[in-house]
Amino acid sequence: VELAHIDWLQRHTPPDPRLVAGIGDDAAVFAPFGAAPLVAAVDVITDLVDFRIAEVTPEQIGHKALGVNLSDLAAMAARPLAYLAALVLPQRVGDEPPAAELAQGIHRGMQRLATAHHVALAGGDTNTWSGPLAVSVTALGLCTGRGPLLRSGAQPGDWLLVTGPLGGSLLGRHLAVAPRVELMIALHAAYELHAAIDISDGLALDAARLATASACGVELDLAAIPVHDDAARMAQGTGRTPLDHALGDGEDFEILVAAPPAEAARMLAEAPRATQLTRVGQCVEEPGLWQRTGRGERIPLPPRGYQH
Amino acid sequence: VELAHIDWLQRHTPPDPRLVAGIGDDAAVFAPFGAAPLVAAVDVITDLVDFRIAEVTPEQIGHKALGVNLSDLAAMAARPLAYLAALVLPQRVGDEPPAAELAQGIHRGMQRLATAHHVALAGGDTNTWSGPLAVSVTALGLCTGRGPLLRSGAQPGDWLLVTGPLGGSLLGRHLAVAPRVELMIALHAAYELHAAIDISDGLALDAARLATASACGVELDLAAIPVHDDAARMAQGTGRTPLDHALGDGEDFEILVAAPPAEAARMLAEAPRATQLTRVGQCVEEPGLWQRTGRGERIPLPPRGYQH
Repeated sequence: VELAHIDWLQRHTPPDPRLVAGIGDDAAVFAPFGAAPLVAAVDVITDLVDFRIAEVTPEQIGHKALGVNLSDLAAMAARPLAYLAALVLPQRVGDEPPAAELAQGIHRGMQRLATAHHVALAGGDTNTWSGPLAVSVTALGLCTGRGPLLRSGAQPGDWLLVTGPLGGSLLGRHLAVAPRVELMIALHAAYELHAAIDISDGLALDAARLATASACGVELDLAAIPVHDDAARMAQGTGRTPLDHALGDGEDFEILVAAPPAEAARMLAEAPRATQLTRVGQCVEEPGLWQRTGRGERIPLPPRGYQH
Repeated sequence: VELAHIDWLQRHTPPDPRLVAGIGDDAAVFAPFGAAPLVAAVDVITDLVDFRIAEVTPEQIGHKALGVNLSDLAAMAARPLAYLAALVLPQRVGDEPPAAELAQGIHRGMQRLATAHHVALAGGDTNTWSGPLAVSVTALGLCTGRGPLLRSGAQPGDWLLVTGPLGGSLLGRHLAVAPRVELMIALHAAYELHAAIDISDGLALDAARLATASACGVELDLAAIPVHDDAARMAQGTGRTPLDHALGDGEDFEILVAAPPAEAARMLAEAPRATQLTRVGQCVEEPGLWQRTGRGERIPLPPRGYQH
């Protein structure tokens, strides 16, 4: 539903001069009405889809609900300002914690992450119902002096870098989102970046989105993709390859960045080892998603990933 | 849950210099980072609680989801700027429309109201699950040159006015929210207003909230309260009085305004008849909610209303 619905929304939403970027990027960017453009992102996570309430703590749910939004702001290289949270809480069922206790745990999880990233809680709404838990967070941020980093600025020839290893997030990392806020602000300040997207639905699918938004193609060098240990562990159970998990699992919440070759090379050379910046491919003229084989051939790569 | 949870949140949310008003007002107000302070509000509405999906159109759901948020901005006398919408959609069950069709209808309903109030859609997230429908909207606005109108500025002696008749909204008006955005901006520009709150949970309860936020009391003149025809119709079925419905039903989405007596009198004298501004009471020194009887006595009035 989600992708088709976003398409539909883009076609049916009139352009508005107050928005520099609207539906279809990681976050909306407002035309400046002050010193810095405002950036806003919304994400909703739900029981049964994004977590299983019986298997996680309320704090983990809150952490993830805010974390996925901060990851969207990170992809814009925006500095988080504030968040608003809407909770729809199940009435107590069986052994589940009562609604108030659940709400407080979720807010504790959000607040811990918010404090770490200096984000203020600006508003909330809390309802109780007979359905399962849903948590919707809207995050607001401000662009730095370098302006927003959109999905749409990549150019053929740009190198593509990722900020960390991918795959197997379902083993736990999907809950412990570590949004790349500070790293992206630092990179955006020190280097000329062309475009970025956060990897929420899988490297292949999100790389294809960046390509589409930038009206170019993306060629991934599969041998270069940093595969997380979790992807290897997952692969033991699924019979798929670790690389396949790295390409398609999603919820990595790393950032895919496009930058001109000289800047990208400088970034890779200068980056502290801890950042784990890795080159995974490049932008090409031909639209679409491609892989480079060991023999240097370019063949189509299906943009598989988590389709909502 | 909601009231207790807001209390808990207020106690557990550290103060932040970037917020002029945070949890506990109709909307958050940001310290200016530009020409005008930013205002943000979030509300979530759900099937079974705020509407029954089998009895309404998707467009009505969308209208209400955005309308309740614009009503919050109206209570701050802020000009709406943009909104972000998160939808959690039920998979198709029985005769219900498929999720994509439902999502589009909801967005059509939001967009119609958004266009009328010149609000831009800035972002969205859409998920499908096995639970019922939930729609969460975050609305952003900008204060006018007069700044935000908070709940907390009322003073003893202020007159209290409402912007329209109350009660019986469940007969249909709760869906057809007509947010008092333009009226409140106009009043805020032309008169000195001290405080305002939107009547979402019932005049009695929301008046008590304004009193608490302003550290004063509120005395309602029950004979003066404008009772909607819907309240009279409801009363025929419930055995309660129309006044009781006007005091406690909620979801009127009218605004309760506090202003100094001279300003309030001028407003009443000058307002076009169509605005239906009515004096319903005054602010008093003694904390709490009071009613003035026909004999001029002041007795406590229970702050009943819709408790989430």
